[in-house]
Amino acid sequence: MRLLLLSNSTAPGQGYLEHAMDTLTETLAGVRRLVFVPFALADHDAYTAKAAEALAPLGIEVVGLHTGDPVRLLRSAQAVFVGGGNTFRLLRALYTRELLALIRGRVANGTVYIGSSAGTNLACPTIRTTNDMPIVQPPAFDASGLVPFQINPHYLDPVPGDPHMGETREERIGQFLEENDVPVLALREGTWLRRRGSSLTLGGSDAGARLFRRGSHPSEVATGTDLSWLLTITARFH
Amino acid sequence: MRLLLLSNSTAPGQGYLEHAMDTLTETLAGVRRLVFVPFALADHDAYTAKAAEALAPLGIEVVGLHTGDPVRLLRSAQAVFVGGGNTFRLLRALYTRELLALIRGRVANGTVYIGSSAGTNLACPTIRTTNDMPIVQPPAFDASGLVPFQINPHYLDPVPGDPHMGETREERIGQFLEENDVPVLALREGTWLRRRGSSLTLGGSDAGARLFRRGSHPSEVATGTDLSWLLTITARFH
Repeated sequence: MRLLLLSNSTAPGQGYLEHAMDTLTETLAGVRRLVFVPFALADHDAYTAKAAEALAPLGIEVVGLHTGDPVRLLRSAQAVFVGGGNTFRLLRALYTRELLALIRGRVANGTVYIGSSAGTNLACPTIRTTNDMPIVQPPAFDASGLVPFQINPHYLDPVPGDPHMGETREERIGQFLEENDVPVLALREGTWLRRRGSSLTLGGSDAGARLFRRGSHPSEVATGTDLSWLLTITARFH
Repeated sequence: MRLLLLSNSTAPGQGYLEHAMDTLTETLAGVRRLVFVPFALADHDAYTAKAAEALAPLGIEVVGLHTGDPVRLLRSAQAVFVGGGNTFRLLRALYTRELLALIRGRVANGTVYIGSSAGTNLACPTIRTTNDMPIVQPPAFDASGLVPFQINPHYLDPVPGDPHMGETREERIGQFLEENDVPVLALREGTWLRRRGSSLTLGGSDAGARLFRRGSHPSEVATGTDLSWLLTITARFH
């Protein structure tokens, strides 16, 4: 199984996917045809064109999953890229089209999976650690389970003295852990996870990640850390 | 119908509910017994004790909805106060206990309803404009519909030059409007809505609110504005 799960698709002052181009090039080595899943945003054509433009220098043909028979498209592609946007909208679209199991099956059989933001949430067992607004109601929160733990993309550290009285991200993840016994890997912007078979590594910027587990203080994870043990945990959702 | 819907329960540097004590005193005039709904947080006893302490100066007896037969408790109270926390956890608890319709019915029959944050989301037709993390899965996003439009509590204006690449609150509400034709009143911290029958007014701090409607630019709403027309709109969720 080959996965690349990005916290974010765009870094400040850079173009779409530019900050991750080296790891994308490596992950997509040998891939000629990629299916793009644009359902997290409203304009599927425009979103697919943006992804195609970003990946053109790699010589990869990008086809939108909305442009034809999705089963045939997924079977003919060597990679699938699920773009960011609203996770609830993305998940509902995949349930409506009955594509979740197909994507999971293709990736288990060797199709490369790339996700950014909402696409990274989709690789988790559930979307319960998304930051997105629940603008539409999917039939369930269960996602593709390409990894057995939860990821929180776009992780933001608490800001001391912030007068805003809404929950910090750390508090929100703490509430998740009150209800579920599942580790949450919070990816700061510019970082990503790479899975190759039973190997899992944190990559990207030096910002690193933060790991939240029930009953423990959160711990820092440095970029480059081998996190393969996270693929062997047992998740307990309630 | 008498409602008080607070954006937040605590203001910077003040105690729980302290910033809203005048409007609480006015809204709760004549109320001797209040039922507190603590399900948005994990520790129901501690949360109820906190609410009881804050309302003690008003001479009001506060009873937690988790402490006895909820039907009897709701029937014997003159007011219900739904505290903030996680909106998904709150809504799931009310579905599990089959209390949503009962609360709606009691409030329609004159029981005062006070909500803060998650409790304010609960007064809307759905929880689709909450800021909270979907840590548990309620059977539906439909809420109590005490007002026919959506509210976004803890509203934060976009920060120019913010390097964080996640969506701004304005962008998230824009995504909601792509999917649903329902006005969203975004309450900045320190503000609240008061409904008395067919009258609706924005109260609280001078920060005011921001109104988002499909096909229009967002507009500013000054504190003190009569918003009764919002009670007559037709919501179209998709």
